[in-house]
Order: sequence, then structure tokens, then C-alpha cells
Amino acid sequence: MISLVENDAPQLQELMAAIVAHAGTAAVIGITGSPGVGKSTMTSALVKAFRAQERRVGVLAVDPSSPFTGGALLGDRVRMQDHAMDSGVYIRSMATRGHLGGLSAATPQAVRVLDAAGCDVVLVETVGVGQSEVEVAALADTTIVLLAPGMGDGIQAAKAGILEVGDIFGVNKADHDGADHVVRDLKNMTRMVERDPGDWRQPIVATVASTGQGIDDLVDAISKHRDWLAESGELERRRRARVRDEIEALALATLRQRFADLHGDERLDTLADKVLLGELDPYSAAGEIVAAVS
Amino acid sequence: MISLVENDAPQLQELMAAIVAHAGTAAVIGITGSPGVGKSTMTSALVKAFRAQERRVGVLAVDPSSPFTGGALLGDRVRMQDHAMDSGVYIRSMATRGHLGGLSAATPQAVRVLDAAGCDVVLVETVGVGQSEVEVAALADTTIVLLAPGMGDGIQAAKAGILEVGDIFGVNKADHDGADHVVRDLKNMTRMVERDPGDWRQPIVATVASTGQGIDDLVDAISKHRDWLAESGELERRRRARVRDEIEALALATLRQRFADLHGDERLDTLADKVLLGELDPYSAAGEIVAAVS
Repeated sequence: MISLVENDAPQLQELMAAIVAHAGTAAVIGITGSPGVGKSTMTSALVKAFRAQERRVGVLAVDPSSPFTGGALLGDRVRMQDHAMDSGVYIRSMATRGHLGGLSAATPQAVRVLDAAGCDVVLVETVGVGQSEVEVAALADTTIVLLAPGMGDGIQAAKAGILEVGDIFGVNKADHDGADHVVRDLKNMTRMVERDPGDWRQPIVATVASTGQGIDDLVDAISKHRDWLAESGELERRRRARVRDEIEALALATLRQRFADLHGDERLDTLADKVLLGELDPYSAAGEIVAAVS
Repeated sequence: MISLVENDAPQLQELMAAIVAHAGTAAVIGITGSPGVGKSTMTSALVKAFRAQERRVGVLAVDPSSPFTGGALLGDRVRMQDHAMDSGVYIRSMATRGHLGGLSAATPQAVRVLDAAGCDVVLVETVGVGQSEVEVAALADTTIVLLAPGMGDGIQAAKAGILEVGDIFGVNKADHDGADHVVRDLKNMTRMVERDPGDWRQPIVATVASTGQGIDDLVDAISKHRDWLAESGELERRRRARVRDEIEALALATLRQRFADLHGDERLDTLADKVLLGELDPYSAAGEIVAAVS
């Protein structure tokens, strides 16, 4: 089913209609951070911890950063070999490039598949600083932002917008030099965020994913966040926002497709050439496209 | 004018119509890379080099990674103080969050403003691994991907899709331990890319932006890439693709706005709730939206 999602197969509408009533119970956890912070190792450690709680786990390694090559590297799967023989774990690298609605439509659909298939937890792992990180945050109930010492200083982290995106911060490779410094910087930064009483206070958890150190604390933080989500009404709000994004992405993709079907490619080239020659402004060009599809 | 772009002001169409015939001559150079590799220092070094060639330079520091806070940190401007008194340099941090068409529409508009205003070179600096990096590559004639030692290994770099995005690789902080290693890894990776004769071969330039070491080589590589772009027809192809993206982003934004104007917010909520209750699939929900705007 995830292959159908990935390839944006024509059966997808029928498939989604069939499974939509069976989804809605999985806890969706996003894991993101810069390359090299140890996301895959952390994902593997979390899978182990959730399995110890006898929860069924689905893992989606989404790679939105490579629209050209399309698809995550083999490395992800290799690193997850620990769980290869466990029927309570499903692991999948997924490319979203072929999907009409991109990351915003493909990922919630894949999450829905795993949810409906009976996963109690769905872990969505994504490389990224920047837009893809923000999109992952929008897809998850709980977003863990991983950092590690030696990957750039505090100001840089703030610049990348992680403060707003993370529900929980993991400072991984906590046995490396400089980890204390990262924890301290994060503490100072999170302290500066204005909060109302009842707002979530982002915990900072030091971990060494490769040895399992701190993983219990992280699992505990995830569980506390889950409780807060349910009590505050935020869970419902986030899930609605996620479905809204999905619907909107599909609608825009449909309109784009409709335009393409109307010899849109040539028409766009003609319009682009007029703009390049200085004969037409881009807004008027866009207006012609809007008129064509509506 | 860039403030008008940033704020998606109603005058924008008129403005673009007035300047579109005056743009099209600037060389647009994108600089991207993970946080901490030294993008701002490199931008400053390149500004100095281009000024030595008596070329007028515009710098756009685009921060797509922070849609919540909206806007780049003051740090960028502080670091560019060297050029504050030079009337041949214009430096601007730009947020794209308020813009209807997002990064894809706002940035080319801002580039057009600087181009029409007489900049010979427009440097677009963007934080990012992932989607934003790819978008920046689409915006520039020449994209420089900066790396630095200690920021994650070769496989990670490949994962982030930088191989496809960079026209030129800069290995900055070349005086730090491990820089040779990064250069070697990049050489091995670029060697594996299949190329036709006549295709561009991505050069790898070791630099220390803070001292100016290697900057002449980088400027030389940019100039060679420029020649290749012109001779191969790639420049025309890239510029057309850029304008196409801009037009399409504006068209989709217009459609989205049109939907929002039709009490779309409530309607989307109602549709999302039906999907969450398992009563409706997301494709049928998207179909209702498409029907509403067209």
C-alpha cells in the first residue's frame, strides 16, 4: 500500500476510502535534525523501547531532500537490521518525489496506512533543517528535534527555527565533548520563549542512542507530551491541521494536473518567455493560468 | 520594493509590470549549506571579490526555515558591516513567510528588483539542507554548496541531495582538521555521477572565507560556470524554469486565496473532521475544494 502511495497510483482514492475509518489511533512521532546527529540510531533505539512495551511500531524514513535521485539510501534500512526479524516492526524508506501532492500529501497517507494496519506508534524520520523540518512537525503529534555537539552553535540552531518546531529536544552523542554546552544553550533559548500557563514546556533530554543511555527519559518525555496533547485539546487541533494540509495539497495537485492536461507545459513556456522578454508581468501570467483551470 | 515583495503588497503586480523589462542581466548566485559552515562569511568574502571587479552586488539573505518567527536574525546584517558604507553593495535579509506564493514566488521577485535596480551580481544566501536547498538551486544561475569539516560525513552529504544541487562545492574552514577528508569524499562522489561530454563537471574549491584563502579560485569557478551556462544553453533553460516556477506558485496562491475567500477555512475544517471520523477519504474532500474554486 505504501508503494501505491509513493507512486501516486490511480487506486489510491479507493484505497484511502477503504482504510480511512480504520485509522486514527496511532501515536505519530516525528524525528528530525541535521545530517549526522544520529537520527537513524535514535529511531532504532526508540523502536526497541516501544517494543519492550509491546507496542507495534511502524517506521517511515522520509527523504524529501532528494527530489532528483528519489529515494532514501540503503543505509537506513541496513541500520535497522536489528528489527528485521520482529513481526511487530515495519520499517520503510519512502520517497515522496513522485507524489502529486509532495511530502504534505504522501506522508499523511503513508502514516494512515500504517495506522490502519494496526501500528500503535508510527515514527517518521526525516533529514532536514528548514522547510522539510517544519513540514514534518506538521505531520506528527509529537516532534523530536535531535541535536548533537559539534554541529554548529546555538544561534545557528535558533536560525533554523528548531525552537518552534520541537516538542522535545534530544541532545544526542551526549558522551561527546560539548554536549553540556548544547544542553545549556537550548535551556537558555527555551527559557526565552513566552508561554502561557498550561502551555507545553519543551524538555531537553541528553541521550547516547548507540548505547541506549537516556532513551528511557526520552520515552518518558514522549509519554508526558502525549498526555498533555490529549488534555489540552492540542491533539485534536494538530490532527485536524494535518488533514487540512493533506486535503489542500491534494486539491492544489489536482488543479496543477488539470492545468498540465490542457497543454499547460507549452503554455507555461510561452508565458515564461514573455516574462523573460519583459513583455508580461508574472502576475498577469499567473492570471492566465488561473483562468485556464477554472 | 523588497519590503513590498516581502509583504505581498497589493501594488506588487503594478510594480513587477513596471520593472520586468529592466531585469534579466544580473548573474544570480545561490549560496547554501548546513548551519555553521560559514555561509555569511563566504557571502561577505564574495562581495569583496566582486567589488574588486567593480561589479555592483546585491545580497539577499533568505530565511525560509523560520515560518513561525518570520525573518532572519540580526546576525546576518551585523556580519555584513564591512560593506555598510559601500554604495555599490545592497544587503537585505528577507522573510518569505508572508508571501502568498512562498519562497518560490517571493525570491525571484526580490531578485528581479535587484536586477532591475542595476545589480550585476545577486547573491542569494539560504540556510538549508533539504527542500529549501533544492528551491534555492532552482532560483540561481549558479549554486554554490558550502561544506565544512566536522559537519557530518560523506554519506550524510549525499543523503541531503547536495550532489545534484551544487554547481560548485566550496569546502570552507579548509584550515580545520578533516578538510582534506571532505574534499576527498566529494571528489569520490562527484566522480561517480554519470555525465555526458559537454556536461558541467562540478569543481571542488577549498576555502577559508574568514581570511580570503581560496576566494579567487571560487570566483574563477563561478566565472567558468557562467561561461558554460551561456555556451550550453543551460542559462536560458534555467531562467525559463525559474520564471515558470514563479508563475505557477503565483497561480496556485491565487487559487488558494480564492478558496479562502469562499469561507474556505470553515469548509476545510468540516471536510477535515469528516476525514478524521472516517466518513470521507481525502481525495473526495480535495475534489470538493477543486469544485468550489473552479
